[in-house]
Amino acid sequence: MSGKRLAVLGAGAVGGSVVELAASYGHTVTAFADSSSAAVAADGVDAASALARKNDEGVVGGADPEDALSADYDVLVEATPTTLGDAEPGFSHVRHALERDADVVLANKGPVAERYADVMALERESEGAVRFEATVGGAIPVLSTIEDLSPSHVSAARGVLNGTANFVLSRMATEGLDYEHVLAEAQDLGVAEADPSFDVEGTDAALKCVILSNVLAEGEREYTLADADVEGITNVPGSALELAADEGQTIRLIGEATPDSVRVSPRLVPQNAALAVSGTRNIVQLETEHAGQLNISGRGAGGPETASAVLSDVGRLD
Amino acid sequence: MSGKRLAVLGAGAVGGSVVELAASYGHTVTAFADSSSAAVAADGVDAASALARKNDEGVVGGADPEDALSADYDVLVEATPTTLGDAEPGFSHVRHALERDADVVLANKGPVAERYADVMALERESEGAVRFEATVGGAIPVLSTIEDLSPSHVSAARGVLNGTANFVLSRMATEGLDYEHVLAEAQDLGVAEADPSFDVEGTDAALKCVILSNVLAEGEREYTLADADVEGITNVPGSALELAADEGQTIRLIGEATPDSVRVSPRLVPQNAALAVSGTRNIVQLETEHAGQLNISGRGAGGPETASAVLSDVGRLD
Repeated sequence: MSGKRLAVLGAGAVGGSVVELAASYGHTVTAFADSSSAAVAADGVDAASALARKNDEGVVGGADPEDALSADYDVLVEATPTTLGDAEPGFSHVRHALERDADVVLANKGPVAERYADVMALERESEGAVRFEATVGGAIPVLSTIEDLSPSHVSAARGVLNGTANFVLSRMATEGLDYEHVLAEAQDLGVAEADPSFDVEGTDAALKCVILSNVLAEGEREYTLADADVEGITNVPGSALELAADEGQTIRLIGEATPDSVRVSPRLVPQNAALAVSGTRNIVQLETEHAGQLNISGRGAGGPETASAVLSDVGRLD
Repeated sequence: MSGKRLAVLGAGAVGGSVVELAASYGHTVTAFADSSSAAVAADGVDAASALARKNDEGVVGGADPEDALSADYDVLVEATPTTLGDAEPGFSHVRHALERDADVVLANKGPVAERYADVMALERESEGAVRFEATVGGAIPVLSTIEDLSPSHVSAARGVLNGTANFVLSRMATEGLDYEHVLAEAQDLGVAEADPSFDVEGTDAALKCVILSNVLAEGEREYTLADADVEGITNVPGSALELAADEGQTIRLIGEATPDSVRVSPRLVPQNAALAVSGTRNIVQLETEHAGQLNISGRGAGGPETASAVLSDVGRLD
């Protein structure tokens, strides 16, 4: 695995961590941009300076963001915020890179959740490849495992794919507290956003399942968020968890992706089941044709965790 | 991933399953051998016939085993029984393939547990590559996950790596039965061999941990079985499990591999811990620098399961 030149778009937790960790994985960041600025350097952007400047002044450098897209690089790391519908500007960033035969590694879910067929068409026309491990399950190696087995040998991927919702449900269960109380606690801890709807309504988990179904369907069908059957955790009462506990069960927000369907909903699971992970941990369970059931769990989110998935993807490029 | 030509050495559960499943992964078996016979066919061995003949007559074909090694193939699949010390004849099979610039995929643990430095030296001199996912954890994608993260970012790999020993301990725990009783049950079920020592004395788990430490040490140190600190389950009394249960704990045979050490021993683990898998399931827990702790569990053994790991490795070759 030889070192690659990376152009990193997005200076949030993930983009910042990719820039910070790239050298320890043998790669060089030749461009780094946020929404209003960029740092470009053919022999490598000074990660510490750019991140300090972002922290102090709100910009990563003195160049324009467009300068990052037109810089010299082997791999575009797209870590700008996930957007739905037309998935812009992320989709255009992907197209720009593929049209110049560069590779793309996505942390941004939008392009592969909402415009998967378009992305795959651009990839077919390009010398570059598109990888997106970081869009599903953070640090957990889900897509690479499916790829190694071949999607044709995987009949379903299900699991706990949103740490915020899982933290809330597992705390409600262990502490006997109600939803509003635990949500407030989660917000205080920074585990839930001020507006938590993306997580607690199941949208984030649904986007990840849409991506999984797109992979499992192998081009036979294309899924978008609109195709997902989604129910979040906002209507799970504490009493439901107590009743479940009487039967040795608990409730988790479970997403399930098959080649034919995408569904997210709260489900009863045995308390000692692999799916009953605690706190913010995620788990993905793959049903495979020859390898039985594989369970992979780990941290589903976080800057270094997600950056680790991005950098693993860079390593898997030719 | 284009189809490869496979020469499969070994007609036991793993070799037989590789031959049976190869076509569904896009590959062609051009040679298939057991210890006394071979079937060779440039356009593909008839898997069903060869397996039926093995079943009925004890041979896979009318050719000599040497004819398989000298046949035309891209990848040698070495699935002959694991041997210790000089790891022969498996090691010579590996050398033969690499010297002709073919790739090697191992299910046989011997060469990478007992002669790792020799194998790596041969690989460096060859256009071919050596992969060995199937030697550790059966269907569980352990080595590919470590490879994607880079071994330098993984500080430890620990887990339950022998299904027989785990079945015995978890049955002792849930049924309150003693070791001899559960071992006899396991033998009746075919989960334990008539001579179970390789499994219950911890040797099998130790070989897998030796392989893991060889990978994690990245050439700085070489480990063999002799370097492993090994204690099996033969002295775990039922009373120890009862005492553990009073504290919400149980006992599992845990192997731990780091760049600096290899150790297998029975250990106390919380009953609800990820490591407390039941039955014959295996689990590997990776401690990673940026991705936190990853847990991967699944079936640790079995013909199709291990063949699935072999065929995933074939898919990861150039």
